[in-house]
Amino acid sequence: MEKNAKRQSETELLVCIKCKRPHAVPSDSRRPGQALFDRITTLQTPDGVKITAVECLQNCDHGCTIALRGGSSKWTYVFANVDETAHPEVILAGARQYRDSTDGIIPWRERPDHFKRNCVARIPPVVQPQET
Amino acid sequence: MEKNAKRQSETELLVCIKCKRPHAVPSDSRRPGQALFDRITTLQTPDGVKITAVECLQNCDHGCTIALRGGSSKWTYVFANVDETAHPEVILAGARQYRDSTDGIIPWRERPDHFKRNCVARIPPVVQPQET
Repeated sequence: MEKNAKRQSETELLVCIKCKRPHAVPSDSRRPGQALFDRITTLQTPDGVKITAVECLQNCDHGCTIALRGGSSKWTYVFANVDETAHPEVILAGARQYRDSTDGIIPWRERPDHFKRNCVARIPPVVQPQET
Repeated sequence: MEKNAKRQSETELLVCIKCKRPHAVPSDSRRPGQALFDRITTLQTPDGVKITAVECLQNCDHGCTIALRGGSSKWTYVFANVDETAHPEVILAGARQYRDSTDGIIPWRERPDHFKRNCVARIPPVVQPQET
């Protein structure tokens, strides 16, 4: 129970490893989603961020796809059109900003451009601020 | 704490009330998302399902948008292109099936056609089955 409670409170970067990205010519035999996960996990993981491979976030027409969540007080965000070569550093920087936010909302002016333009959906916190 | 634990375990149908739906001619002064929420809440709510209005699920290009979540053991799903006139009953039937599932995954053959064709994204359970 304590383990679950701890997991609930940490920031998690979910990376779809099944993403194929339409019309893309793969640079190797891996799927672009797997290549993205592999590249992200070779970089330094921000403190307090857990990186998790997921087998399909069902945003298949606009992969690669990632999601950020951080416990019951934060919005969960899903971002599309991630490029496994160009975007790993941007994604980790965004994950760090997300971790440092109170509610998961990165202030608009500080938000990475890729996040601004490629948000697929967001899910509200389980615990709504107005209820606390 | 007990209140939060209880909320975590219930099925929640989130309805974006800000959705405008591109190119649609509104039938009245309400936004389509608000009309969808109003219509859904006039129908009989399935037992164990909480219906919550949300002010933007950020799937604005493909509204109306809804989401289903059900605690830490279920996948969360986001569905797009919901029609406020044609789909309220379908959405509630789907919410009932989601509620009755173990992990939030409605078996494909039983899944409503609208859910099959309009899934925007899904988020894995916080507690992964393989970890239990």
